[in-house]
Amino acid sequence: MIIVLKPGATEKQLKHIVDRLKKLGLKPMISRGTERTIIGAIGEEDILRAQPLEVFPGVDKVMAVVAPYKLVSREFKHEKTVVSVGKVKIGSKKLVVMAGPCSIENHDMLLKIAKSVKKAGATILRGGAFKPRTSPYAFQGLGEEGLKYLHQAGKETGLPVVTELMDIRDIDLVERYSDMIQIGARNMQNFNLLKEVGLSKKPVLLKRGISSTIKEWLMSAEYILANGNFNVVLCERGIRTFEDATRFTMDVSAIPLVKKLSHLPVIADPSHATGKWGLVEPVACAAIACGCDGLMIEVHNKPEEAFSDGEQSMLPEKFNDMMKRFKPIAKSVGRDV
Amino acid sequence: MIIVLKPGATEKQLKHIVDRLKKLGLKPMISRGTERTIIGAIGEEDILRAQPLEVFPGVDKVMAVVAPYKLVSREFKHEKTVVSVGKVKIGSKKLVVMAGPCSIENHDMLLKIAKSVKKAGATILRGGAFKPRTSPYAFQGLGEEGLKYLHQAGKETGLPVVTELMDIRDIDLVERYSDMIQIGARNMQNFNLLKEVGLSKKPVLLKRGISSTIKEWLMSAEYILANGNFNVVLCERGIRTFEDATRFTMDVSAIPLVKKLSHLPVIADPSHATGKWGLVEPVACAAIACGCDGLMIEVHNKPEEAFSDGEQSMLPEKFNDMMKRFKPIAKSVGRDV
Amino acid sequence: MIIVLKPGATEKQLKHIVDRLKKLGLKPMISRGTERTIIGAIGEEDILRAQPLEVFPGVDKVMAVVAPYKLVSREFKHEKTVVSVGKVKIGSKKLVVMAGPCSIENHDMLLKIAKSVKKAGATILRGGAFKPRTSPYAFQGLGEEGLKYLHQAGKETGLPVVTELMDIRDIDLVERYSDMIQIGARNMQNFNLLKEVGLSKKPVLLKRGISSTIKEWLMSAEYILANGNFNVVLCERGIRTFEDATRFTMDVSAIPLVKKLSHLPVIADPSHATGKWGLVEPVACAAIACGCDGLMIEVHNKPEEAFSDGEQSMLPEKFNDMMKRFKPIAKSVGRDV
Amino acid sequence: MIIVLKPGATEKQLKHIVDRLKKLGLKPMISRGTERTIIGAIGEEDILRAQPLEVFPGVDKVMAVVAPYKLVSREFKHEKTVVSVGKVKIGSKKLVVMAGPCSIENHDMLLKIAKSVKKAGATILRGGAFKPRTSPYAFQGLGEEGLKYLHQAGKETGLPVVTELMDIRDIDLVERYSDMIQIGARNMQNFNLLKEVGLSKKPVLLKRGISSTIKEWLMSAEYILANGNFNVVLCERGIRTFEDATRFTMDVSAIPLVKKLSHLPVIADPSHATGKWGLVEPVACAAIACGCDGLMIEVHNKPEEAFSDGEQSMLPEKFNDMMKRFKPIAKSVGRDV
Repeated sequence: MIIVLKPGATEKQLKHIVDRLKKLGLKPMISRGTERTIIGAIGEEDILRAQPLEVFPGVDKVMAVVAPYKLVSREFKHEKTVVSVGKVKIGSKKLVVMAGPCSIENHDMLLKIAKSVKKAGATILRGGAFKPRTSPYAFQGLGEEGLKYLHQAGKETGLPVVTELMDIRDIDLVERYSDMIQIGARNMQNFNLLKEVGLSKKPVLLKRGISSTIKEWLMSAEYILANGNFNVVLCERGIRTFEDATRFTMDVSAIPLVKKLSHLPVIADPSHATGKWGLVEPVACAAIACGCDGLMIEVHNKPEEAFSDGEQSMLPEKFNDMMKRFKPIAKSVGRDV
Repeated sequence: MIIVLKPGATEKQLKHIVDRLKKLGLKPMISRGTERTIIGAIGEEDILRAQPLEVFPGVDKVMAVVAPYKLVSREFKHEKTVVSVGKVKIGSKKLVVMAGPCSIENHDMLLKIAKSVKKAGATILRGGAFKPRTSPYAFQGLGEEGLKYLHQAGKETGLPVVTELMDIRDIDLVERYSDMIQIGARNMQNFNLLKEVGLSKKPVLLKRGISSTIKEWLMSAEYILANGNFNVVLCERGIRTFEDATRFTMDVSAIPLVKKLSHLPVIADPSHATGKWGLVEPVACAAIACGCDGLMIEVHNKPEEAFSDGEQSMLPEKFNDMMKRFKPIAKSVGRDV
Repeated sequence: MIIVLKPGATEKQLKHIVDRLKKLGLKPMISRGTERTIIGAIGEEDILRAQPLEVFPGVDKVMAVVAPYKLVSREFKHEKTVVSVGKVKIGSKKLVVMAGPCSIENHDMLLKIAKSVKKAGATILRGGAFKPRTSPYAFQGLGEEGLKYLHQAGKETGLPVVTELMDIRDIDLVERYSDMIQIGARNMQNFNLLKEVGLSKKPVLLKRGISSTIKEWLMSAEYILANGNFNVVLCERGIRTFEDATRFTMDVSAIPLVKKLSHLPVIADPSHATGKWGLVEPVACAAIACGCDGLMIEVHNKPEEAFSDGEQSMLPEKFNDMMKRFKPIAKSVGRDV
Repeated sequence: MIIVLKPGATEKQLKHIVDRLKKLGLKPMISRGTERTIIGAIGEEDILRAQPLEVFPGVDKVMAVVAPYKLVSREFKHEKTVVSVGKVKIGSKKLVVMAGPCSIENHDMLLKIAKSVKKAGATILRGGAFKPRTSPYAFQGLGEEGLKYLHQAGKETGLPVVTELMDIRDIDLVERYSDMIQIGARNMQNFNLLKEVGLSKKPVLLKRGISSTIKEWLMSAEYILANGNFNVVLCERGIRTFEDATRFTMDVSAIPLVKKLSHLPVIADPSHATGKWGLVEPVACAAIACGCDGLMIEVHNKPEEAFSDGEQSMLPEKFNDMMKRFKPIAKSVGRDV
C-alpha cells in the first residue's frame, strides 16, 4: 500500500501513521520527494485494506499495490480452470454454447426448442423459471413447475441444464432440478446468495453486473471460491453506458483481460448485451474471436409470443445457421464449437 | 403505445399487427406518413407492454406513451405521502436527518454516537448490522448482536432506528429490532426482497441502485407498494459515472424530478454519494436547496478506527456544526431542520 | 413526429398545437387514448424537429419517428460505399490495416516503422504531426516537419498516409502532405472543422467521440457529406464508461449496427480503445469477426522511448505475428487481409 | 511517481528501470514488499510523466503522486481568483447571473430579453451567434450579425456580454463584440482554440466537456493559463451518464471539489444540465447552496418560437420570480445575488 501525504503534512502526522503501521506489523518505508512525502507499507496488504487510512490527518490518498482478489487470480492458480457441467467441459478447447428460451413457458415449447438447439450443436440448455423483472406486473416465471419442465427437457435431450437462482430460499429446488446455477447480473453483489452457492456442489455461472467493474466482478467470484466452490464460470453480458442504440454495451475487451487476471472460464451473452437478435451473431463472433470459452444465447420458436425478451430471441433456424458460421471463426483461433 | 413500421413494411405485415392488436382488445389507429407508417394502439398500455412487438415483421420500433409505474405516481395519488417512523414524520415541513455510523461496532461506541447526533438535531439513528462488502475478507457486520445494540441505543436516546436488510431470512430479526427497514443500493432490484418488505408493516427506505434509472427506481418502489406497503421513502445516493474524483456522482436533479413524478418522500445520502467527508456538507446543502425531505449521514467518533467507510464519516463535532448551517438553508426553501 | 399530451391537457391546448402543425404544412392525426391523447404529425419531420414542441402548453413529450441523418443512411444509398485512399479501397473485401506510430518523432524512426508495417501487410501508414494532448506541457507534435517526414515515408514505401487535422488553419498543409485526413475523437463535434473537410477532396477518417452516441457520430458524418465530401470512413475507437481497467470500452456492437444504418465503411482502433498493447490483438480479432472494414493500430519500434502512447504501441515483430493471425479470422467471415 | 513491478520481475528488469530513472536525474527508492517490489521515483514528476513507463519490461502499473496541473491549482495560488468582466466581479461575495437566449435571433427579441433579465437582477447577458448544432440542417446562428445585436443590447442595457467562440478564425470578431469569451463543452479539448484564448486579453468562460473528468477540465484551463490568460471562469453544465430522464446529469459535487483543487471561480449552468426548464430552479438552488460563484441561465420570451433549446428556456416572468427565491438561499451560505 502506498500512502501519499498532503504537501503540508507535519512530522507529527507522519509519525502517527508510521506508528500505526508498525503496530499492525507492517514495515513503513518513507520517501521524501521534492513535492510530497510518501510511505510504502510493506507486509500483508489485506491488513491495511481494512484501515480507513485516507482519514488519517495529513494523508492525501492511498493507493493499492496488489489486487484484492486471491483465489480467482492467475497468481493463485496459473493453469486455466475447466468446469464440468454434466459431461460438458467449460474452458476446454471446445466452446460451450448454452441456448434456450429466456423464460420457460410450458413443457412442449421448451422441449421443442431444446431439441432444435441440440441439433444445431448447443451443449447446455438454458431457461428461466424465476425471472427478475423490472415491473411487478410482468410475468415472473413458472417457479418449480418451470424447473420440472427444464429438468425433463434436459433428460429427454441429454443436455445438462442451467437456470437462474434469485432467492436463497429456492436453492434446494434449483439444485435438485438443474446442473448449473446461474447468478444473474442483478444479483452479482447479493453477497449472501454468493455465499450460499459457494457452499453448493453445483457449478455456478456468474453474470457480470451491469455497472460492475472487472475488479468487483472478480471479487464476487472470490466470494464463491472463498466458500469452497471452485467451479465458477464468468459471463460477460454487457454493461450500462450512455449509448442507447443497444440495450447494453458488450465489453468485449473484458474477455481477454479477465482471462489474463483469472484462471476461471469466461463466456459471453450477446442476447442480453445487444437486446436485438439481429446483432447477436456479429457480437457472438466477436466474442469467439477474442477468446471466450463459450456463449449463452436466447432462442425461441415464436419470439412474437415470447413471455419475455422476445426482441432479443432468435428463431431456431437462424440459430442453426449461425452455429455453422461459428465453426470457421472458432477454428481460426484454435477452438472448436 | 406507438408502433413505427419500417420504410418497406408491407400491407400484409401491417394487417398482421392490426389483427393482433384487435385480438388483444385494443383499437389501432393507422397514420400513413410521407416516410413511415405508424400505428397508435389505444387501450390499456399494460396489455401491450407484455407483447414483444419489436419482433413482429415490419416493425422498426415501439414507443411507450405512459409510464409503467402506477401506485407510486402523482397521477395515482396527488398529495405528497408522509411516512411515519416512530414519532418522526418524513415528507413534512421538517427535514429528517438520519445519522450514525456505517457499521455498528459495539454498544458503547454506538450509544456515544447516538447521543451526540441526537444532541446535534438528528431524529433517526442509522447503523448497519449486516454489511454488503465487495470483499469476502472484509468485516461483514455484527448481525443480531449489532441489531440489539441498535435497538438499545434507540431506546436509550428515544431515536427511532433504521438498518439495512440484505437477506430475506433476516426479515423477522430486522423487523423486531428496527423501526424502518433499509434496502441498499445493491439490492434495489432484488425483487423477492422487495416483495417481502412489501408485506411488512415497517416503513421502508429504498436506496437508488448505482446504475438504476429513475424509472427503474420507481418500478422497484412499485414492487413494494404493489405488495401492500405504502410507507416507502426513496433515497438518492449517487450513481456510477466515468468521474472517479468522487466515489459516485450525486444526481441532484433526480430529487426534484422524482418529486414531480411520485408522491413518495425523497431523501439524499451525501456520505455515500461523495465518499469523502469533506464534501458531505456542500452536497447535503445542495440536496436541501433542491427540495429533499431529509438526509442520511455517516457519523463516527473515531473515523480512523472505523470498521468500514471511515473516509466518508464525519466527526460528531463537525456534524454538529454542519447541522447548524443546515438551518438557514432549510428555512430559505420553506423547511425546518 | 408523435406528440404525447399530458393527462389533463385541454381542448384549447390541443387546438393550439393542431393549428401550429397545419400552419407548418403538416397533417395532424389525433388519437384519443384511454389515458392520453396523442397527435401524429404527418409530413416532413425535419420541419418539426426545428420546433421546440415540448414547451407547448399541454405537451408531455415528443418522439421522433425517423432518424435525423439522411445522406449517410442506408435508406439514402443502399450499396456499401467504397472509399479510395490512393490505390487502397476501404469497404471492399480486403480489410485495410492502417499502422504506424502515434506521433511522428523523426524521419528515420518513421521510415523504419513504415517499412516494417508494410512488410507485415499494412496498406496505409498512420502518424500524428499535430497531437491533441491533455496537458499543455506534453509533446504537441512536430507540425509541418512531421508532415514532411510522413509524406516522404509514404513515398519511399508506396503506402498512402493518414494524419490528424486538429486546426482549420492547417487544412492546406494536411491536404498537401497526406492522402487521408483524420478527424480525432475530440474533434468529432468540431462542426466547423467538419464543414471544412466536407469541402476537401481528400477522403476523411472520422473517429467516434468518446461520449458520442452512434446517432451523433452519424450526424457528424452527415456534416461532411452535406458539404459535398462522400468519402468518409468511420472509426470506432472506444467510448468512455465507468470501467477503468481499460483506457476506454470498445463498443464492438457499434460496428455491425452502424453497418446496418449507414453505407459508409467502418474500421476499428483497438490501440486507443484498450490503451494496452497486450489487448490489441484479441480486440482487433473481435472487430474483424463482427464485420469491420479495417483496423488502425499503433506500432512503434521502441515503445519505451515513444513520445506518446507508448503503453498501447506494439513492437513491429509482434505486429507482424498478429497480422498472420488475422488472416484466418478474416477468411472465416469472408474477408481478406 | 510510484512504479509497481510484476510479481515475477527480474533483478535485470529492476536495474534497467533504476538506470533509466537515474539518467533522467531522478532518485529511485526501492521497497521490496512481500508480494511486490515498488520503486518510488523522487524528483520532478513531470519528467516521468513523459515516459511510457508502463511499457518497460517487468512493470505492472505506474501511479502518479501529484496532480498534473500547476497554474490552476490551489497549491500554486492559494487565494481565490476574482475575474472581472466589465464592472462585474466573478468569484466575489456577490453571485453572478448570466442570462439570455440560447441563440440570438434578432435585435428586438434580444433587447427585450436583455432588459427583462437585467430588471430581474442578471448582471451579464448571454447569447449565441455561433451555434454548435448536432445536425448540419439545424439553425447555425446569425454569425457577425448576431454579435452586433449582442453588442448593442449590452450597450443599451449596460450589461457586459458573453458569447461562444467555436472557430479560431472568429476570435477577432468575438473579441471585438463581447466582454467574455465562452468555450463550449464540445470544444473543451479543442486545444488550439484554448491556446488562442490563452493569448487573448478577454476573460474566458470554460465549460466542462460532457464526458470530461474534473482533472481533464482543469488541464484544459491549464492550457489557457499556461498561455498567459489567468482570467478563467469554470462552468459545470452536466455530464453524460446512463440516466436519460434529464438531458445531462448535473455533477453538483464537482463545484465544491473544484473549489478545493483550484483558485478559479466556478459557476453552474442548470439549463443545459437538465434540459428542462421546470428543473432549472431547483438545480440552480442546489448549485448556490454548495458554493458556486454564479449561474448561467437560458431565458426566452417566446420559448415556443425559439430557434434552439426552447425546452430548457425560461420565460422572463418565471426567471424574475426565481431570482427572488435565489436571494435567501444565497444569503444562507453567506453570499448575495
